[in-house]
Amino acid sequence: MRQAGRYLPEYQEVRRKAGGFLEMCRDPELAAEVTLQPVRRFGVDAAIIFSDILLPLQAMGMPLVFEEGRGPVLPGPLRDERRISKLKVAEPSVDLGYVGEALRLVRARLDPQVALLGFCGAPFTLACYAIEGGTSRTQVHVRRMMYHQPELFAVLMDKLADVVISHLRFQAESGADALVVFDTWAGQLARDDWRRFAAPALQRVFDETAGLRPRLLFTLDGGHVLDEQVALGPEGLAVDWRVDLPACLDRHGGRVAVQGNLDPAVLLAPPEEVARRTAALLAAVGGRPGHVLALGHGVMKETDPEAVAAFVETAREGAGASSAQPPGRRTTGARHDG
Amino acid sequence: MRQAGRYLPEYQEVRRKAGGFLEMCRDPELAAEVTLQPVRRFGVDAAIIFSDILLPLQAMGMPLVFEEGRGPVLPGPLRDERRISKLKVAEPSVDLGYVGEALRLVRARLDPQVALLGFCGAPFTLACYAIEGGTSRTQVHVRRMMYHQPELFAVLMDKLADVVISHLRFQAESGADALVVFDTWAGQLARDDWRRFAAPALQRVFDETAGLRPRLLFTLDGGHVLDEQVALGPEGLAVDWRVDLPACLDRHGGRVAVQGNLDPAVLLAPPEEVARRTAALLAAVGGRPGHVLALGHGVMKETDPEAVAAFVETAREGAGASSAQPPGRRTTGARHDG
Repeated sequence: MRQAGRYLPEYQEVRRKAGGFLEMCRDPELAAEVTLQPVRRFGVDAAIIFSDILLPLQAMGMPLVFEEGRGPVLPGPLRDERRISKLKVAEPSVDLGYVGEALRLVRARLDPQVALLGFCGAPFTLACYAIEGGTSRTQVHVRRMMYHQPELFAVLMDKLADVVISHLRFQAESGADALVVFDTWAGQLARDDWRRFAAPALQRVFDETAGLRPRLLFTLDGGHVLDEQVALGPEGLAVDWRVDLPACLDRHGGRVAVQGNLDPAVLLAPPEEVARRTAALLAAVGGRPGHVLALGHGVMKETDPEAVAAFVETAREGAGASSAQPPGRRTTGARHDG
Repeated sequence: MRQAGRYLPEYQEVRRKAGGFLEMCRDPELAAEVTLQPVRRFGVDAAIIFSDILLPLQAMGMPLVFEEGRGPVLPGPLRDERRISKLKVAEPSVDLGYVGEALRLVRARLDPQVALLGFCGAPFTLACYAIEGGTSRTQVHVRRMMYHQPELFAVLMDKLADVVISHLRFQAESGADALVVFDTWAGQLARDDWRRFAAPALQRVFDETAGLRPRLLFTLDGGHVLDEQVALGPEGLAVDWRVDLPACLDRHGGRVAVQGNLDPAVLLAPPEEVARRTAALLAAVGGRPGHVLALGHGVMKETDPEAVAAFVETAREGAGASSAQPPGRRTTGARHDG
């Protein structure tokens, strides 16, 4: 989950200078700088590149606007065959070159012991934004296309998968040590719909990036499709805070790393309470192998940096106490909407 | 889940005459009329009173406004001790008398074979609206109060539970055959937080309405606290479309009725697809006793009434084919935001 963000005064300063969120994402120097900020401040053992899951849609020819307090808006939503056929299959090394440049800058400045993560939105999540034209709780247009024009929906998903695959490859070539696939919206689907409409493109993504780098899959609200996510073949499964972590590790820990899952809203508590909760989570996990401690979602903008520090420090003490894990590479934390 | 709503032209007509959503809720004749509309049109075997979960907050002295396309707004959010201490413990028979009157009108006009459901928001969900002042995805103010002023939060929850309990009693006295408790927001909490912050007031609600009428509990996104919800003692557990229904029935069906769970967004599909999905759901349940077929949430305003008809007809055929269940009282469907 995104570590950098508006809760950090040093981030706010860069953002003011940049003039906007997208400007910051598209400027490799600024993106590299804010990527490194949480590593400097907290000493986390992995950094996640500062970027946004919607940039590939922009690279595919969709106008994209971020308005303060309104979230992303894509003024030309894709709801018919004509628009979908005009969608360009972007070439990330050209159209998203600034992401590669930011990764190279960060990798060069980062302690070699600290992992650098790249990421991409999952095809279903990108389809949701592309079809709805922004954030939608009800996903009415997505469902209409799924159920009334399943072939057209599949064409769109395939184009999106092409770009997701090449963007993940490009990030690996540019210095990412591991890759995260974020599926923000597929968790809204019942299991059968997930299998039919979200899984095929996601399977292509994991098949066609196999062996490249360790890949983590995170599906928000995806507790009902954990077995199915593991079956896609990721090296890691990231789960949200409502998933029973010890049970998940017992079931899947032999096959994948399991990343999770303190509720990021717990970081609104006083630092000593954050420390207590983090320690309790580690105690519940009880040193089960394959656990990667992280937040179940991005850091909220209202969070006190002291609370993040309490989380990281407690995690580090816990990792030191736990024998099964090396002390490094245990805490990460990124999300696309900062 | 709410059956009446903007997807029905006859509802739109009443709403135009009423001038607004709240006006319709507060006029017993109009509320009764729209409650009866889906029974007339579809022949469902239960009706749910047309009302809103936020009306008890208004009765407790909080200003409440519904703006088209914006959802509910409570302009005086409760974030300090002074405001919470001024909150009035409403007397539903006086302050929500119009709900009782609407129930009496519906009960008098409804076929005695058709069940009439009353409902109330759960204390945690009401607290979310009261503290945030409206719908919030992040619940920042709620979390701050929970974690920084847990005693104050408990005082608020207790006042809300008082009103929830008396409102459920009042609805039973006014003709409701069964009562639904809707918890829209508690499913966002990790299990430990749910136990500590949502469960105590909810336990009071179920303890203090025991034996009154069959009570159903629905927690949106609550798949991670099913055991805990059953332990509170409701007669029925309503689950959303992401819960594995056969597994849930196998685990809990001997203790509670399980209501669920077609995804309401599936009703955006062509009617023949809706029929196919409904039949598939019933086949998966395989006549397990204790199942009540319903939608996993309210009917979306973009839904074609023909799709609802396909759902109800398929359900009725399924109920006729299934030996374990009486043919009536199997399909319901209400939610608070129409």
